[in-house]
Amino acid sequence: MIVILKQNADQAQLAQLENWIRAEGLDIHKSEGVNSTILGLVGDTSKIDIDLLGALDIVENVKRVSEPYKSVNRKFHPKDTVVDVGGVKIGGGNFAVIAGPCSVESESQICEVAEAVKASGAAMLRGGAFKPRTSPYSFQGMRGEGIELLEKAKAKTGLPIVTEIMDISQLPLFDNVDVIQVGARNMQNFELLKALGKVNKPILLKRGLASTIEELLMSAEYIMAGGNEQVIFCERGIRTFETATTRNTLDLCAIPVLKERSHLPVIIDPSHATGVARLVKPMCIAATAAGADGLIIEVHNDPAHALCDGKQSLTPEAFDDVMKAVEAIRPYAYKMGE
Amino acid sequence: MIVILKQNADQAQLAQLENWIRAEGLDIHKSEGVNSTILGLVGDTSKIDIDLLGALDIVENVKRVSEPYKSVNRKFHPKDTVVDVGGVKIGGGNFAVIAGPCSVESESQICEVAEAVKASGAAMLRGGAFKPRTSPYSFQGMRGEGIELLEKAKAKTGLPIVTEIMDISQLPLFDNVDVIQVGARNMQNFELLKALGKVNKPILLKRGLASTIEELLMSAEYIMAGGNEQVIFCERGIRTFETATTRNTLDLCAIPVLKERSHLPVIIDPSHATGVARLVKPMCIAATAAGADGLIIEVHNDPAHALCDGKQSLTPEAFDDVMKAVEAIRPYAYKMGE
Amino acid sequence: MIVILKQNADQAQLAQLENWIRAEGLDIHKSEGVNSTILGLVGDTSKIDIDLLGALDIVENVKRVSEPYKSVNRKFHPKDTVVDVGGVKIGGGNFAVIAGPCSVESESQICEVAEAVKASGAAMLRGGAFKPRTSPYSFQGMRGEGIELLEKAKAKTGLPIVTEIMDISQLPLFDNVDVIQVGARNMQNFELLKALGKVNKPILLKRGLASTIEELLMSAEYIMAGGNEQVIFCERGIRTFETATTRNTLDLCAIPVLKERSHLPVIIDPSHATGVARLVKPMCIAATAAGADGLIIEVHNDPAHALCDGKQSLTPEAFDDVMKAVEAIRPYAYKMGE
Amino acid sequence: MIVILKQNADQAQLAQLENWIRAEGLDIHKSEGVNSTILGLVGDTSKIDIDLLGALDIVENVKRVSEPYKSVNRKFHPKDTVVDVGGVKIGGGNFAVIAGPCSVESESQICEVAEAVKASGAAMLRGGAFKPRTSPYSFQGMRGEGIELLEKAKAKTGLPIVTEIMDISQLPLFDNVDVIQVGARNMQNFELLKALGKVNKPILLKRGLASTIEELLMSAEYIMAGGNEQVIFCERGIRTFETATTRNTLDLCAIPVLKERSHLPVIIDPSHATGVARLVKPMCIAATAAGADGLIIEVHNDPAHALCDGKQSLTPEAFDDVMKAVEAIRPYAYKMGE
Repeated sequence: MIVILKQNADQAQLAQLENWIRAEGLDIHKSEGVNSTILGLVGDTSKIDIDLLGALDIVENVKRVSEPYKSVNRKFHPKDTVVDVGGVKIGGGNFAVIAGPCSVESESQICEVAEAVKASGAAMLRGGAFKPRTSPYSFQGMRGEGIELLEKAKAKTGLPIVTEIMDISQLPLFDNVDVIQVGARNMQNFELLKALGKVNKPILLKRGLASTIEELLMSAEYIMAGGNEQVIFCERGIRTFETATTRNTLDLCAIPVLKERSHLPVIIDPSHATGVARLVKPMCIAATAAGADGLIIEVHNDPAHALCDGKQSLTPEAFDDVMKAVEAIRPYAYKMGE
Repeated sequence: MIVILKQNADQAQLAQLENWIRAEGLDIHKSEGVNSTILGLVGDTSKIDIDLLGALDIVENVKRVSEPYKSVNRKFHPKDTVVDVGGVKIGGGNFAVIAGPCSVESESQICEVAEAVKASGAAMLRGGAFKPRTSPYSFQGMRGEGIELLEKAKAKTGLPIVTEIMDISQLPLFDNVDVIQVGARNMQNFELLKALGKVNKPILLKRGLASTIEELLMSAEYIMAGGNEQVIFCERGIRTFETATTRNTLDLCAIPVLKERSHLPVIIDPSHATGVARLVKPMCIAATAAGADGLIIEVHNDPAHALCDGKQSLTPEAFDDVMKAVEAIRPYAYKMGE
Repeated sequence: MIVILKQNADQAQLAQLENWIRAEGLDIHKSEGVNSTILGLVGDTSKIDIDLLGALDIVENVKRVSEPYKSVNRKFHPKDTVVDVGGVKIGGGNFAVIAGPCSVESESQICEVAEAVKASGAAMLRGGAFKPRTSPYSFQGMRGEGIELLEKAKAKTGLPIVTEIMDISQLPLFDNVDVIQVGARNMQNFELLKALGKVNKPILLKRGLASTIEELLMSAEYIMAGGNEQVIFCERGIRTFETATTRNTLDLCAIPVLKERSHLPVIIDPSHATGVARLVKPMCIAATAAGADGLIIEVHNDPAHALCDGKQSLTPEAFDDVMKAVEAIRPYAYKMGE
Repeated sequence: MIVILKQNADQAQLAQLENWIRAEGLDIHKSEGVNSTILGLVGDTSKIDIDLLGALDIVENVKRVSEPYKSVNRKFHPKDTVVDVGGVKIGGGNFAVIAGPCSVESESQICEVAEAVKASGAAMLRGGAFKPRTSPYSFQGMRGEGIELLEKAKAKTGLPIVTEIMDISQLPLFDNVDVIQVGARNMQNFELLKALGKVNKPILLKRGLASTIEELLMSAEYIMAGGNEQVIFCERGIRTFETATTRNTLDLCAIPVLKERSHLPVIIDPSHATGVARLVKPMCIAATAAGADGLIIEVHNDPAHALCDGKQSLTPEAFDDVMKAVEAIRPYAYKMGE
């Protein structure tokens, strides 16, 4: 950590600051320039609050040199984490596709889609029971009943199930859920993250619409700090000035950046990123090529009558076509370090 | 609502669509052009799911003409809402300043600040008990104990108290809180919004870092749809590409835009928007001039030792100076319709 | 084009508007709803100024249904355009890689790089002679002399040369340049675009840092409207809130979106998009997989001593490795319509 | 400037780097920590290319401590610059309003508007002769003829004239123009900036749609480095994710930030920032309150028939109302250092 002092900083206050830093167990290397003096803080600075230092009268600026995250940091955990979901592995060279409808709507719907996506090679089933919707007047999901229907589809197909939690109070309903999804709007719902840190299940953590890579890493750190080491990152498009064609801008460069900084697996959601069914295929191919550990894709047996997000859902036939293209490209995908 | 059909749309599907629209109780006005055919849907379209229509094979695009919100809409409620907080009024020409520390740290701290801001003219006391922090290793707030200290400060000064809720489960602790704040990161925590719709207390709803004005209006609609009509909007800076100097970009034009679209009061938080104490004064003055119904300002008796956000906190002296400047400019502030 | 009228619009003004629309050769389809009246304008609306209509007292909103561009529009030109650069083809299934240093620095440097990239399979040589730099104190390029050195490298290797123009006055120096590049900062330098519309050479048009896809299409329309039909689009990253790791956010979804809307070829610049050499390879692979018609990559024989952008330049060895990975993935890349 | 070295950096390369730094006339202060070693570069680092250092194998990161601009920097020029335009002063406590139509359309139009805005207190006349338009099919301005009409309006009213240049080749036509405007899209047209550095006239430099404050300062530095010290900054809205209501997001905090960093005057353009006439008044009031040195406002005698941007133009009556509100608020506006 580097502390840049203001010109003509008061010497008494400076001495006080230096004493405080040393009391925190850190060494100080001081560089006195013509225009500014710099303190280099040497030691474990992860517990130092950067804002606190920045607020001091004599300080012009503070810059972090080392990362503020530890458990998720590849530096301290160089090997890829492999998350195991009932035998389905993801990460460390294992690739898995999660597919299913945006919302669970009925037993026949979810079971039909589950069988179709399994036949095409999907490794897990997704389906929304609790639905975050911008409008209070939109369909809010089947909630507890939706989870029961997912369990039926799991019983029929053997596919592990992935579904979103929206509030801590819903946690008891997730006993038979295999992967708990944290949606983009809840990426910084810190109380929820803390609760999920105490759960013994993989967490699919979606990047917020306007969250930086570092914030995403810090949110995973919340979960890991609680003791749960099974976190899967999911990039699903970020919000930018470009809103005309696609709902969001898919940041595929997040794949190598996240995998460089962290040992956790990274998957891509091209359905929410683009919001347009016909753009899902090229983005699935590109994401796989960029080295993603998996994909999460919306598939509906009747997109035109889906209760939400039909516009971005693939038919089972289109999904099958995507899976073939993804399988074909996998051997040529980017692998870090090669 | 306008539905633009694809060129050469299948006539049978079109007939089916038209029947469905009429079954929803709407009239159709059809415009057939050379390059495209347009259906104008006439009637109450607020219940029509725009995504559902957009997913149809024969549809190129769907555009809303009327707003998707009702309770917050000024069109259906032309008069300004005045929120009354234990006698302190905000909105409809009533201006109120909320001030206090980012975090409650001790009884002496919160009481000292409360007395200081009251003396300078603040109408309510703010103080964080539950603190949303990017890092799990940062101070997370005094939580329940913090609320108790706020209540002591209220008892001493008579100032109504405003503090943030982070999870539904914390609600019982808010019995003696006067205004419940929903933070930027929870603006689209829909389960929390629904729960607050059942509460009989004013809600201070902060705009999310990357939330559009319309999304903010829809989040207020969630609260109002539950029966709670006391919502106060708070603009606190949005996330843009400019991150060098200020933490966020304060969108002061949101004041007239929100007041045009909605009857609810709008306040500004220049402390979080700028993240820099010396920029708080000019932004308080500008926000007041633009017609804000109030301000929420961080004040700390010892900013350099604040446990969080010290960098953006004013001293009581600086706050007093800001209050004088704000009072001076108020008579010349913008008033809509004049 | 759809014109949404204000509630209770003045009937005399409405009659006047309708007459004006008909005088422009358009038909009107009127939908009268309870809350609003809508005019559907039928015919060729590309000459109607949307702002002019929007400014009228009685108009609430105007929405375009058809695109404001014609020459670049795939609707009117369904077949892919193939740009031919001295025998090197790009577009319509032809893939080409442009490589070379950010700046031309010396004859030996540019010739050495040219031979290296040719040996690895590059089809064209790039090199900056006129350099847009944020600081007036940074190296501004070798200018005219740089173009002469590029011509020498072309003479030695036979590679067509691509270099950036920064001002109309430089045009005479570009006689022997094969492809004229318009940089991101000049994408809306309309006088330059008009001048390039009169040139009989391919134009490599880079997307601006904050330009929408539609603005990029309109800038190409400027060139094509002047008579020059050889335009190549280049996505090079857009500016977003995420600035920590990568310089910009690479928008790979722009590839299928641009190719859907336009018949012109689309290439990707991962060097400027990421700004980090080690991220160039995964983004080259992903861009190729997403269906790009080519790549433009920075290669320097001595990146650590490059006069600009060394941080993002590949060594010739690293470039060779990227080319092999790109060649391997090409057969499995996304093709529109398949 | 701070150079953070990679862990286990090669000692021979490090020695080479240290020699190079010292050869540039700088001192080095070295801090060796457990996880990283830091070099503090002491002396005048403004000529050091940060990218060059960052490209070195042994370097993890480089951070600037002092600003990369000099002539525009308030640190080296503490007193406000006052720009004098034919007797009209702007900056250093002098406030001036520039008003007029988006485009010059006819002699009667420009003269009528000039007289009206003068009567209401405008100090200068604006009017576009060369018009940057997204579409090649939109009205491109009256060009040279437009400047002649501006000169006639100046002759009639005595108001100095402000108009936009789009290309260096147009410079000879600007002999009788009082202030040359550089539009947002040309803020980083560096060849144009260099040419304007040689001109003896004030330059009104508009911030680019996605330009950071630092980039704006650097563009002014281009002009000042050429010898022209009369630069006026203009904030006119930046491009963000919020595009629904207003065309751009007006960044009023840019006023105190720019004035803190630079001695040059800062004005605000609420017409382009909002794009909506009825939002111009509140933003004029807020900008004045925030300490702007002036405003530039679009006024048209017949907005509904303006050839461009009618939607955001005020009538002369509305402008007169805005001027009264601005005058009323000026005495209470923020003044830096008070």
